[in-house]
Amino acid sequence: MLFIGAVRHSIVYLKKSKMNWSAVNCGGLSKNYITGRMREAMYGNFGTVLFVNLNSRRIESENFAPNIYRDYLGGYGLAVKMLYERMPAGVDPLGPDNILGFTTGTLVGTPAPSGLRFTVSAKSPLTGTWGDSNCGGYFGPALRSAGLDGIFIRGSSEQPVYLFIDDGRAELRDAGHLWGKDTTETEDLLKQELGHDVQVACIGPAGEQLSMIAAIIHDKGRAAGRSGLGAVMGSKKLKAVVVRGSQEVPMADKGRAKELRRKWVKALLAKPSAQKFRKYGTIDHVASSTFSNDAPVRNWVGVGVRDFPQAELISDDRILAYEVKKYACWQCPLACSGYYTVREGPYAVQNAHKPEYETCGMFGPNLLNDDIESIIKINDICNRAGVDTISAGATIGFAIECFEKGLIRAEDLDGIEPTWGNHAAIMQLTERLCFRQGKAGELLADGTRAAANKIGHGSEKWAVHVGGQELPAHDPRYGPGWGTYYVVDATPGRHTQGGQNSYENGKGIEGLALPKLQKYRPENRGEVAVRTHNIFHALHSLGLCRQVLLRMNINAWLEFLEAVTGEAYTLELLEKIGARIGAMRQAFNLREGIPVTKITIPARAYTDPLDGGPLQGVVLDIETQIKEYYEYQGWEPETGRPTRSRLKELGLEALIRDLY
Amino acid sequence: MLFIGAVRHSIVYLKKSKMNWSAVNCGGLSKNYITGRMREAMYGNFGTVLFVNLNSRRIESENFAPNIYRDYLGGYGLAVKMLYERMPAGVDPLGPDNILGFTTGTLVGTPAPSGLRFTVSAKSPLTGTWGDSNCGGYFGPALRSAGLDGIFIRGSSEQPVYLFIDDGRAELRDAGHLWGKDTTETEDLLKQELGHDVQVACIGPAGEQLSMIAAIIHDKGRAAGRSGLGAVMGSKKLKAVVVRGSQEVPMADKGRAKELRRKWVKALLAKPSAQKFRKYGTIDHVASSTFSNDAPVRNWVGVGVRDFPQAELISDDRILAYEVKKYACWQCPLACSGYYTVREGPYAVQNAHKPEYETCGMFGPNLLNDDIESIIKINDICNRAGVDTISAGATIGFAIECFEKGLIRAEDLDGIEPTWGNHAAIMQLTERLCFRQGKAGELLADGTRAAANKIGHGSEKWAVHVGGQELPAHDPRYGPGWGTYYVVDATPGRHTQGGQNSYENGKGIEGLALPKLQKYRPENRGEVAVRTHNIFHALHSLGLCRQVLLRMNINAWLEFLEAVTGEAYTLELLEKIGARIGAMRQAFNLREGIPVTKITIPARAYTDPLDGGPLQGVVLDIETQIKEYYEYQGWEPETGRPTRSRLKELGLEALIRDLY
Repeated sequence: MLFIGAVRHSIVYLKKSKMNWSAVNCGGLSKNYITGRMREAMYGNFGTVLFVNLNSRRIESENFAPNIYRDYLGGYGLAVKMLYERMPAGVDPLGPDNILGFTTGTLVGTPAPSGLRFTVSAKSPLTGTWGDSNCGGYFGPALRSAGLDGIFIRGSSEQPVYLFIDDGRAELRDAGHLWGKDTTETEDLLKQELGHDVQVACIGPAGEQLSMIAAIIHDKGRAAGRSGLGAVMGSKKLKAVVVRGSQEVPMADKGRAKELRRKWVKALLAKPSAQKFRKYGTIDHVASSTFSNDAPVRNWVGVGVRDFPQAELISDDRILAYEVKKYACWQCPLACSGYYTVREGPYAVQNAHKPEYETCGMFGPNLLNDDIESIIKINDICNRAGVDTISAGATIGFAIECFEKGLIRAEDLDGIEPTWGNHAAIMQLTERLCFRQGKAGELLADGTRAAANKIGHGSEKWAVHVGGQELPAHDPRYGPGWGTYYVVDATPGRHTQGGQNSYENGKGIEGLALPKLQKYRPENRGEVAVRTHNIFHALHSLGLCRQVLLRMNINAWLEFLEAVTGEAYTLELLEKIGARIGAMRQAFNLREGIPVTKITIPARAYTDPLDGGPLQGVVLDIETQIKEYYEYQGWEPETGRPTRSRLKELGLEALIRDLY
Repeated sequence: MLFIGAVRHSIVYLKKSKMNWSAVNCGGLSKNYITGRMREAMYGNFGTVLFVNLNSRRIESENFAPNIYRDYLGGYGLAVKMLYERMPAGVDPLGPDNILGFTTGTLVGTPAPSGLRFTVSAKSPLTGTWGDSNCGGYFGPALRSAGLDGIFIRGSSEQPVYLFIDDGRAELRDAGHLWGKDTTETEDLLKQELGHDVQVACIGPAGEQLSMIAAIIHDKGRAAGRSGLGAVMGSKKLKAVVVRGSQEVPMADKGRAKELRRKWVKALLAKPSAQKFRKYGTIDHVASSTFSNDAPVRNWVGVGVRDFPQAELISDDRILAYEVKKYACWQCPLACSGYYTVREGPYAVQNAHKPEYETCGMFGPNLLNDDIESIIKINDICNRAGVDTISAGATIGFAIECFEKGLIRAEDLDGIEPTWGNHAAIMQLTERLCFRQGKAGELLADGTRAAANKIGHGSEKWAVHVGGQELPAHDPRYGPGWGTYYVVDATPGRHTQGGQNSYENGKGIEGLALPKLQKYRPENRGEVAVRTHNIFHALHSLGLCRQVLLRMNINAWLEFLEAVTGEAYTLELLEKIGARIGAMRQAFNLREGIPVTKITIPARAYTDPLDGGPLQGVVLDIETQIKEYYEYQGWEPETGRPTRSRLKELGLEALIRDLY
């Protein structure tokens, strides 16, 4: 282990020592204390973690032993280690005892392509399970450049505050003037106050009002959208976390890391799939995913080629036509996003963020809405309010179906009469949902499960969520692998886990040789399902972007890790780290009493076949997939518990007492 | 059995007696003899069968015992009974000993909706197996109105002849003046000679030149296309069969049959699927089938949504725009076809027949050809030459791929340089294929297998045929049920068998309750695969159109059968009849020495997954489907032989000696 070596570490130490944390007063409210507990000298490129208590307004810094980073890397790996150990089971997700983590990752702020994401973690108010969500932009690198690997926030403030991290200093500041502002206004005001070189992650009115599908928004349009974590921020009266970071992230061998970047970016950009992604980003397949019915159509019972043949109107070049400027996350070679302007008409908007595939899917085919301008505008409304567009689109679809079937009436929706494809009504309803306005807002602001509970009359069966979280625009009948992760991942209903689908599709992750899967055979998938899930847990925890991960040779990350940390990693080691992270997330849910083996996918996305199109008649046997997943993972299929021996193997002996 | 009842039959007998056959001279060639062997009085609505020997020019009529019709119904049921019993194994399909049958069916010429089809049967030159193909239009009812249930032709003529059936008379006539004419010219000349009230089934230059993918064409554009039966006609120098029939088909209870028609046509036309079919016919899904990849794209390795997004240009209303007049087969309530005119440009054509889905699929997405006018023109060229458009489109696709890969060059193709989507080159190549012109014609006129044999160099793997017959535009990775029938049916590679797909799609045949299938589960499909295969053997043998069969309640046919024959039928009885027909077709192939259990689907339509689109990664386990099929059918999975007990159960004891 090179961590313990002398020369390099002393150099790192010297660099890092410049970033020691100092106590600062909290502007106008009360004292904040930062108590540096320098338990060990800093190693490798790892830095400091802040613990903020909003009850006591105390801010402490802590430097972990290197084995913490070695065993959990960063991202939700580091977060699950902290939250599992430092938070009791059974806390109210919207109460003061929930811990909200902002973490980066080992490769964030380094030359590793897409090493830029930050992850927000907490117990999810939407699902009651482990919750995490990650986000691009500039916030993650800024946090690292401020010398921090993560921030964990507990307690709740009586008055609105924001946390300001300023290159080695941290303070809580009054946010009374920001409360009620949307995320764009908030960011503009904060930059006016603090300078334009700060990065902001904040909530909008949705998070303030504890909407369970509230997101955390950075850079006015990058979202940590899922798991309802915006509501956790809102419950703490924490309007924003603002960071200025100007230090260089320490690296074992910076020259080597830069050299590797040149090599791997060249390899990446030589790939047609990367070139296409660079042009379109995720919107290149709105139409094709509608025609394949990977995207839900008409709240999951429609058939794209039959019911929404006009999908091309909201895909590819039809969206790109509104791009006025490209947007790249911090140093990302793919630069998949952009600023979008609709010049006139009811959906006019200036420099809005580009809607992603998920947004187009959930507000397009899912609602039979072929008006791309309305989707650009709706995306901006959701970003401003701070709402997850996946859950919002799903909820609107659910509402339209309930309206169509007479379970809710116009008078329940403030006079709005939503019908499939009626984009004017869809936008009106989305605005109310986002800002919890009127009867419609109250009914819909917390997502489909809450809405179905209010509406009753069997409407639950049209509410397409898993464990409370709305499904994204990926049908498990199209990609059976989605189905496994929708159920087994600690954040139910998530589509950004594992890599099973790529092995179904006959390609796989470059450099990770695993058996080819037969797309509709539920058997013999355990190995691929588990091993890709685990290795992606590790890769996500490094702070990398999934879109780059899926297009790069996996061995690249080993090279970057060595250059950055000075330590040799192997794929086997990453897999084991990922298995540890996964087991701990699972243990988190088990300790919470979540009936993990009872989580199911709604029938209309699973066992009720579509009546036309390419998926006509397809139903799945996800039980078999899940059973095999559990078996290969070393988790008991009956209870979902990691076995004692598996826990020991992963160095998680401490969890045995909790689970057995 | 009402057949034996007295009163009704004597009435029928009196009617039928008007149609006794009389000997006629063969115009200018030599004597024909018709020797009526009235072994029994005619029963029910069954009539006479003609046996024509082109060697001796002798024509005999025969009236079968009623149990023959009761056990085999008509269509390919009656044909397999005749050919199995009256033709030895091992004959050259293009030699004089092959028997070519034209049969109708119990409900042909009656008020039963779509009771209008005729079936052509023979040993197939394309596959060496049992061959049959059926066709709509007006020929089938005309044959029955001439008092005939079928015609079986053996031998071969030295000079071109045609067979003229004229309401109770039959003769062979010189066809020297027709030889070399295309099917449109032939029909026009024959109608000039014989009157415009005759119906013509003839071959064009392709059949004359023994092209193994030659079709038999009726009404200038209705085709008995598959199995290469046009070449069998050509080998016999039989240019045409011409029929004038003006008698009413006898029925047990004509009033009841008419009443039933009113009832069932009303029920049929009330269905949205029937209304849509009435408007579009089979072309309503060219685009959707391309996007689902049911249709092959770029010779079975392309992805519709990626490689041929312009499929909508050759689908639905884009085709319908060229319709100048609707065309309905004899008394068909769905009237799915039409006459098509391209007014100008390189593909100008007047009153051509509407291209069907298969034609559009094989010449559209399969070749990346988005020029609908070229497809209308090509369809007309194939009809005039008398070529199966499925096999032709497949062969052109194979040729383009061989050209692309450098296995054939422009000089092998008379200077033509065919590339994907190059419709001008595609049409040039199709013309040469159709008329066996030049090097290209010689190379391609006999279909993909023959072309691959000539080209060599491993090109066979791009030749997408099963047992020699090109696959239609239905990908078994899209509909796994196709895969079973492509292999187990006696005519390999056929898409018009069984009804497994409808149970995959969660709908099933109305009135036929069978277990719902899980689309991509190869297990537990045996019952549905076998029972629908069997019952459709019976329904096809009644002379009904598949497009109506798929849209009607199956019990309708029992009611029509009772009204027409005076006999009570049950679904169980139809299933048993179908099982008998299927076993006899299978026995035909086994007796020919066909390695029935060795027939396979090419990898690129089966085990090689597509690399994108909705079928990305899908591979199948058709072996399991086939094994279960054999087991449920009572056929030995190892040899394909119907077991002794199964043969006994079906009253086919006589076959045991041949097979065991």
